[in-house]
Amino acid sequence: MDYEIFETKTRALADNDAAAEQTRALMREKGAKLVNLMGSPGAGKTSVLLRLIEGLKPLRVGVMEADVDSDVDARTVSSTGARVIQLHTAGLCHMDADMTRRGLERMGVEGLDVVFLENIGNLVCPAEFEVGADLRVAILSVPEGDDKPLKYPLMFRTVDCLVVNKLDTLPIFDFDLDRLRGHMARLRPEVPVFPVSARTGEGVAALAGWLRNRLGGEQA
Amino acid sequence: MDYEIFETKTRALADNDAAAEQTRALMREKGAKLVNLMGSPGAGKTSVLLRLIEGLKPLRVGVMEADVDSDVDARTVSSTGARVIQLHTAGLCHMDADMTRRGLERMGVEGLDVVFLENIGNLVCPAEFEVGADLRVAILSVPEGDDKPLKYPLMFRTVDCLVVNKLDTLPIFDFDLDRLRGHMARLRPEVPVFPVSARTGEGVAALAGWLRNRLGGEQA
Repeated sequence: MDYEIFETKTRALADNDAAAEQTRALMREKGAKLVNLMGSPGAGKTSVLLRLIEGLKPLRVGVMEADVDSDVDARTVSSTGARVIQLHTAGLCHMDADMTRRGLERMGVEGLDVVFLENIGNLVCPAEFEVGADLRVAILSVPEGDDKPLKYPLMFRTVDCLVVNKLDTLPIFDFDLDRLRGHMARLRPEVPVFPVSARTGEGVAALAGWLRNRLGGEQA
Repeated sequence: MDYEIFETKTRALADNDAAAEQTRALMREKGAKLVNLMGSPGAGKTSVLLRLIEGLKPLRVGVMEADVDSDVDARTVSSTGARVIQLHTAGLCHMDADMTRRGLERMGVEGLDVVFLENIGNLVCPAEFEVGADLRVAILSVPEGDDKPLKYPLMFRTVDCLVVNKLDTLPIFDFDLDRLRGHMARLRPEVPVFPVSARTGEGVAALAGWLRNRLGGEQA
């Protein structure tokens, strides 16, 4: 064969993995942890974050809000007093490791224990790109339906924890928590599922406890 | 400059536009229309489609269900007796024009007046790729929130019609229909907004009437 086959996607993912290592090194150096928070548009990523900023205390939380456009979420988070930066992906459908590291450097990690990256609202592309996080957390909301792990398997197969938000709306939607747990058990039986309601606060303590434990209790 | 700059994305989009022309030619030849139906995971694309298959009668409707994986939606649609095909994108986050044309050829368009392509649940990537449709329709659901046009502007700026689904849940979510209409009026004032409930059927007749009109009433 006298020509090269250049697998652009494989190559891009390999470059991204290398960049993810740099991001991990940066966070290790600063003694802070990074959580990649993913989910559909409107799943309630920001609302759950607002609860966690409170629920994870005394851990000091910073937030990077990734968005295609707008600064709606950064403004909301900023009102809590937490350190926050708005990242614009200029049309891109996911955050990659290099964008994440540049965001971290720009925001500054000093004095923080945990940084949450709120990824673009999307169940497909963010699952493909490592950002160099210590934990990958997905949020699914009750109104979206319990069949989503069947339809977007990569996302649900690669997370460390699944949050089911808008639990207070369970009575009015055809969403079966046991059916969801069944789908997850087939994909990744070891992944914990935390039903919460960002609106009422239900379930947030259990989620915060698990996160605190996984992010290293010694910092608390 | 003694080297070439190859704008891969620009090039891919140009190739896609050419493929979209082929898809349009195919549909013109068959005398049928193509609707590109987009929205977040769980917005209710399939449920609205089930209502439209009924509501658009006597138009004969076919459905192409695009999914990363699974055939959940095709099975649901199939139960109505409508012609349906499940397309798997094998991880890809959107449908492009070439995949669409191949899906149409495989399903067969003969005897149909309208084909709906239910795109991958995603508010970002599908907006970038023309599939050769006569109409682009987005579905936003009440639980997702009224701020989505601010966060995913390309999608909302490029549709011909916006459907707001799960209208029956308006009392329990912080969703302001007027605020949404305001966002849309700033992006694209000429785009009609149809509030519907796929669950109760509310608003579906108005949406079906508009679609029938735009798809060419002479076929009805």
